[in-house]
Amino acid sequence: MTLSPSCSVPVRHDTVQLAHGGGGRLMRELIEQVFAAAFDNPVLASRHDSAVVPVEAARLAMTTDSYVVDPLFFPGGDIGKLAVFGTVNDLCMAGAEPAYLTAGFVLEEGLPIDSLVRIVRSMAEACAECGVAIVTGDTKVVDHGRGHGVYLNTAGVGWVRDRVDVGPARIQPGDVVLLSGDVGRHGIAVMSVRSGLALGTELESDCAPLVPPVRALIDDGLDVHCLRDLTRGGLASALAELALDAGVDVEIDEARVPVHDAVRGASELLGLDPLYIANEGRMVVVVAPKDAARALGVLRARPVSSGAVRIGSVSKKQGAQGRVSARGALGNLRPLSLQSGEQLPRIC
Amino acid sequence: MTLSPSCSVPVRHDTVQLAHGGGGRLMRELIEQVFAAAFDNPVLASRHDSAVVPVEAARLAMTTDSYVVDPLFFPGGDIGKLAVFGTVNDLCMAGAEPAYLTAGFVLEEGLPIDSLVRIVRSMAEACAECGVAIVTGDTKVVDHGRGHGVYLNTAGVGWVRDRVDVGPARIQPGDVVLLSGDVGRHGIAVMSVRSGLALGTELESDCAPLVPPVRALIDDGLDVHCLRDLTRGGLASALAELALDAGVDVEIDEARVPVHDAVRGASELLGLDPLYIANEGRMVVVVAPKDAARALGVLRARPVSSGAVRIGSVSKKQGAQGRVSARGALGNLRPLSLQSGEQLPRIC
Repeated sequence: MTLSPSCSVPVRHDTVQLAHGGGGRLMRELIEQVFAAAFDNPVLASRHDSAVVPVEAARLAMTTDSYVVDPLFFPGGDIGKLAVFGTVNDLCMAGAEPAYLTAGFVLEEGLPIDSLVRIVRSMAEACAECGVAIVTGDTKVVDHGRGHGVYLNTAGVGWVRDRVDVGPARIQPGDVVLLSGDVGRHGIAVMSVRSGLALGTELESDCAPLVPPVRALIDDGLDVHCLRDLTRGGLASALAELALDAGVDVEIDEARVPVHDAVRGASELLGLDPLYIANEGRMVVVVAPKDAARALGVLRARPVSSGAVRIGSVSKKQGAQGRVSARGALGNLRPLSLQSGEQLPRIC
Repeated sequence: MTLSPSCSVPVRHDTVQLAHGGGGRLMRELIEQVFAAAFDNPVLASRHDSAVVPVEAARLAMTTDSYVVDPLFFPGGDIGKLAVFGTVNDLCMAGAEPAYLTAGFVLEEGLPIDSLVRIVRSMAEACAECGVAIVTGDTKVVDHGRGHGVYLNTAGVGWVRDRVDVGPARIQPGDVVLLSGDVGRHGIAVMSVRSGLALGTELESDCAPLVPPVRALIDDGLDVHCLRDLTRGGLASALAELALDAGVDVEIDEARVPVHDAVRGASELLGLDPLYIANEGRMVVVVAPKDAARALGVLRARPVSSGAVRIGSVSKKQGAQGRVSARGALGNLRPLSLQSGEQLPRIC
């Protein structure tokens, strides 16, 4: 896409029109006055179909996520913040230093321009917080009733330093599983708005960038085996995926998993399992036992992961596929497998 | 996203369910059996939140586009092919060698799985044709009536070789403007399906990758000043954007712009101007006069640009902003400015 922060006619409509996606004057105005104004940076200003950026390491991490969260604004965040932090976090999970993002907007005809401006500003703030830049973007407009205000895609690239090797393939029997904080806030915060549920507290989404703790783990020279952020499907699904992909068994101690009282209360009310509820600022960290205490110390020293705890360990798989189980308060073991669907749709 | 081509249970639904986007078992099955099966490559198979790829040049080009074309399948292409060629072409426009793509799917609940499979296979074929790989992806599902089958985002990265410098900033008065082929096919092909228009001919979209001619121009050592593919808004809007961004005037000879008879006929019938109709496999090439003949020869030697012609030239801007004008058959000049909206919405 071409972005040009040149002229400065005010946006002449209150809502998004089909013509805002048409490649003509209205689209150019929207890009200049809404997107370029918020995301301003030298690469974006180069006005070309592709952004060209300098390379800073021998390996590149790439990721993408689309965001369709309903509602667009929720306690503790909005779709814009989610789209920046979510993609930045995915880059962090490869041990990469996030650098540049792309942004693809699918706008629904009739979306208030004010809502779009609010989302775009939130994205710009989130980028500043993470030290990344949106260097190129695209806007499409779909007919009213064929979208939901905004669907947003962000793709991201980051640099992977020499000797960093983080991924499921490195998980080994004996490894320790750390969790960076309490679980289930994002899902319950979104659900509470959607259902009008009064939680008797101001529970906010945990939506946050995991850059500081991941950067600290890498800078500290810790040999991190695997990182995985907890999103759709929650802690249980993230661990189940890792167990399947790494071909190992994982056992966690359920009593050690922190759950906020409001999350626990709402979960009981709604018949949901907090271990399966979505998060947007939490991760698991898998390290060798010898590194566990030091990694925990590094995590706890950063605000976003100050509630980090050791929750379990990895062992050789017993069956044909890697499996996860949770030990309850009475010593009983329950399996944590991938659920068929999800508890709450359109959560991210 | 995590992609895992391990088990091989057949997809157990005929249509997309909300649960296919839930982060659980159904999503994993969809990813394994539909996406991983088609896009199979070693990076994708690494099963992690980000793909990690080796760096091959000192500069990286990045781009993104979302695709919302209606209908999903049209003569000469489909949304999948469009999404691969469109993003690959944007990378080419920076003089980059396209390398890796990401794919973000927003699926509408109820989409036939068969349609999705057809689109995904078409993407895989398109990638093979361009020599690029889809290395990571994401799937979201929105409620029935909140989408349109598939909205698709592709972001791409490519390598920019040393000494390559292609962009609007390099356009100079005196430069020559070349066009790679006839215009308006994509817009009319899509429109003909949407309106049930019988064109009395099998007009197909021009949807195609511009990799071969761009690679040839660069390999030949031609000092290409600027490349711009013609998409939404057609030839006229692409030139108007370039004139604004480069701060120059452009004059083209309208009689030299090739237009297929069926495109001309349909345009007259519908009251459309072929110069503003969308294309998906055409570009303009701006070079110094001394390079024009050689560049034209290079273009004509590749099938996708065999119809290349010289259409105009660049001059110093006369007004406050750069402008484009077209000289008609009778010697009259008409301005080609950015239109307010677009002639046909949801064209790409």
